[in-house]
Amino acid sequence: MIDLNADLGEGFGRWTLTDDDALLSVVTSANVACGFHAGDPSVMRRVCDLAAERGVRIGAQVSYRDLAGFGRRAMDVPSDELAAEVAYQIGALRVFAEAAGAPVAYVKPHGALYNRTVHDEGQARAVVAGVRLAGGALPVLGLPGSRLLTAAAEAGLTGVAEAFADRAYTAEGSLVPRSEAGSVVTDEDAVVRRALAFAVEGSVEAADGTAVAVAARSLCVHGDTPNAARIAARVREALETAGVGIGAFA
Amino acid sequence: MIDLNADLGEGFGRWTLTDDDALLSVVTSANVACGFHAGDPSVMRRVCDLAAERGVRIGAQVSYRDLAGFGRRAMDVPSDELAAEVAYQIGALRVFAEAAGAPVAYVKPHGALYNRTVHDEGQARAVVAGVRLAGGALPVLGLPGSRLLTAAAEAGLTGVAEAFADRAYTAEGSLVPRSEAGSVVTDEDAVVRRALAFAVEGSVEAADGTAVAVAARSLCVHGDTPNAARIAARVREALETAGVGIGAFA
Amino acid sequence: MIDLNADLGEGFGRWTLTDDDALLSVVTSANVACGFHAGDPSVMRRVCDLAAERGVRIGAQVSYRDLAGFGRRAMDVPSDELAAEVAYQIGALRVFAEAAGAPVAYVKPHGALYNRTVHDEGQARAVVAGVRLAGGALPVLGLPGSRLLTAAAEAGLTGVAEAFADRAYTAEGSLVPRSEAGSVVTDEDAVVRRALAFAVEGSVEAADGTAVAVAARSLCVHGDTPNAARIAARVREALETAGVGIGAFA
Amino acid sequence: MIDLNADLGEGFGRWTLTDDDALLSVVTSANVACGFHAGDPSVMRRVCDLAAERGVRIGAQVSYRDLAGFGRRAMDVPSDELAAEVAYQIGALRVFAEAAGAPVAYVKPHGALYNRTVHDEGQARAVVAGVRLAGGALPVLGLPGSRLLTAAAEAGLTGVAEAFADRAYTAEGSLVPRSEAGSVVTDEDAVVRRALAFAVEGSVEAADGTAVAVAARSLCVHGDTPNAARIAARVREALETAGVGIGAFA
Repeated sequence: MIDLNADLGEGFGRWTLTDDDALLSVVTSANVACGFHAGDPSVMRRVCDLAAERGVRIGAQVSYRDLAGFGRRAMDVPSDELAAEVAYQIGALRVFAEAAGAPVAYVKPHGALYNRTVHDEGQARAVVAGVRLAGGALPVLGLPGSRLLTAAAEAGLTGVAEAFADRAYTAEGSLVPRSEAGSVVTDEDAVVRRALAFAVEGSVEAADGTAVAVAARSLCVHGDTPNAARIAARVREALETAGVGIGAFA
Repeated sequence: MIDLNADLGEGFGRWTLTDDDALLSVVTSANVACGFHAGDPSVMRRVCDLAAERGVRIGAQVSYRDLAGFGRRAMDVPSDELAAEVAYQIGALRVFAEAAGAPVAYVKPHGALYNRTVHDEGQARAVVAGVRLAGGALPVLGLPGSRLLTAAAEAGLTGVAEAFADRAYTAEGSLVPRSEAGSVVTDEDAVVRRALAFAVEGSVEAADGTAVAVAARSLCVHGDTPNAARIAARVREALETAGVGIGAFA
Repeated sequence: MIDLNADLGEGFGRWTLTDDDALLSVVTSANVACGFHAGDPSVMRRVCDLAAERGVRIGAQVSYRDLAGFGRRAMDVPSDELAAEVAYQIGALRVFAEAAGAPVAYVKPHGALYNRTVHDEGQARAVVAGVRLAGGALPVLGLPGSRLLTAAAEAGLTGVAEAFADRAYTAEGSLVPRSEAGSVVTDEDAVVRRALAFAVEGSVEAADGTAVAVAARSLCVHGDTPNAARIAARVREALETAGVGIGAFA
Repeated sequence: MIDLNADLGEGFGRWTLTDDDALLSVVTSANVACGFHAGDPSVMRRVCDLAAERGVRIGAQVSYRDLAGFGRRAMDVPSDELAAEVAYQIGALRVFAEAAGAPVAYVKPHGALYNRTVHDEGQARAVVAGVRLAGGALPVLGLPGSRLLTAAAEAGLTGVAEAFADRAYTAEGSLVPRSEAGSVVTDEDAVVRRALAFAVEGSVEAADGTAVAVAARSLCVHGDTPNAARIAARVREALETAGVGIGAFA
């Protein structure tokens, strides 16, 4: 049984990015942008309405405050401020989720905040403090072995390990940084094959050709590429054909 | 029985404006800025903690998205967007209020949005739609006779009429615009006298010298002037001395 | 002889909108977004480099400070502030134009600021004051008969009248507001036909079927629609076939 | 002969911070905020007018794009983007300086960008690339021994070494980070004494009590503390009494 999650609602004002409608027909969990890297209130409302209507679970995709950099630029935000910023985003999203009849069911950091909380204990704890501040003891999505999941566990929150079907892995199981060549897997067949490997074998081929174990309860398919919806649909179909159950994590 | 409200938490990052600590010892209702004209998440958290600790009721002071103009520049925001922006701000504030053990108990538009919804039916309804979207059927503070209070009533929300002790009134009971000379009453004795007039007589002296009836359940004392806290304290003392009960509206 | 202008560089960070590369092969004047409604510094630099390389003239497309609304929401900005905001944007763009070896050669207000300065004398004068503040006595693009062009002339600036090939006109020669049905002409053949009418006959068919005179020295083709580059190319080809000279205004 | 510089124009919209008027009567160089950490166009204009009127030289105080953090949060901005952001800010300020009859005469990074470019070669070079992009080969202010001054020299720009009268130094001559106790010298007499030490002896007492050589051509007095103007005036008076010439660097 595996969950399929995607980053959604990443437009802002006049700009669109993710094909929210198509992806919400495929995924089981929607990481909705909350306004700090993308996602204005109108977009948030629309995505929440659509997700609730289709029974897709809603999560808060929280970010550094960085529209110009799409949340991809690491920032040294003091812990107290970061916790408050995370809580602010969760609260804002909750209004639209609840108006649509659904709860905000989990939290996933975006971009540079996601990457930073793999190794940075201070920021990982700040994100978790923000989740606690927002109430409801929400589960947190993160990389297996990340400081984020450790901090979540220490704070009594459920950490949910996830894998990326379209990202290259090091032999140690971490993601190859976007700045390096080959960090993103663009071949559709390869993405589908890797998704199956995660779900069925619990491992993936690392950049150096070795097999690396990745125990993931959720699988992320990216939403901001032109063919994102088609790839996601192919991944889902392949998983179902292989007998893997598709469903939101508990 | 009258409520005393003030705009609080109007700092942002490195900048401070309102003397939140001192004013929270005087007022019964705190209109907390929600990040669109002022108020970053850390400030919001601090003000909510302090307000809850002192038993001061927390309201969402919602605004146009306009940090550079402090929300004082009227904007033609389409109704759907405006409703979503209002709901977003209420939701964000709710996280900090509830973490402090208190609810967000009412909504008050700020600056240009406040002034515009006196006469503009479309925007008044959009604000009310945003309040409804945020759930909880929160009361709305506004000028007696404003479109905002009418729209609130039509939507089944409680409208709470308020008066301004430090603003000049026209003979028709509306505020003299800030752009006109004498629009703000700066003499402290006059502010105190006018507060008493509202609370005891239900009327105030208009700019043309006539008496104009203003039935107000709440009295606004401004928080962003250097002597704001002292004036507020004097107003409260004068009301108490005159036997007026001070308490949050029901 | 007619000038072809288009709004370019309207991306921001991760988001793209206009097909700058393709349009810069067609137009003679590029209205470059300056960061207030769209256009981050990297985009501005890239568009200026490309425009200078191809001999396309660079203009500053100035806007209200409104990323969330793409500059399409009218704002009551005080005159002094508006003038300073206009000058700020021109100065920022000038750095990239001059680094590419070209000057900023003219100014055109964007969106709501463009529409507002058709009728609002105060804001029209503020825009012109901003242009003067920025130095160089730059020409200003606007609607024939607009307050903007009058204010420009009064301040000793050249006003350049422009027409819109893809917008419906009233019988009085003003644009049908975007909020009304049929305000944007989407049929490609019709757009080409109307462009020819402006350039050859100096008139266009208004929404009520009458012919309205529109004396335009520049023709705007929009850049933010999917088929923008193709329409622009067709317009240019039709004008050339009809013997109309294509060239930047003096 | 020493230059006195201060960070000015650090208000934004409704918020004020620096006492620009008083400080412009004391310093010889004004580091004017350019809108990314503080400083809206109206503030920039006012400070430039006042500086030009009093013969104070105008410099661009460039920053990360971070209003919420006042530019004090280090950000991993890619080099190309950072260079463009620096150039954008210089260009925007230039409009107001030149309208006031003065040039933008130098560049100084603010806050986290200043600190980061002490050690980070990539960001130091990006700032220098931004200065070059803006044209005019402007001098760059920085810490003696910083990567920033090295990068400036390599690019053919004049690097100007500066010292901080109110900051604690390590024995190696770098600043004690703001996060550590005692990093800011608040005792006024000590600030004056240290300013004299820099100017007369070319050295200062480090946090460990040893003397550390600091060869500085400019002395920074901070502008964002309540008593900033008074301290600056005392520093200037003490320097003059000691026979130190006060004047802008060449």
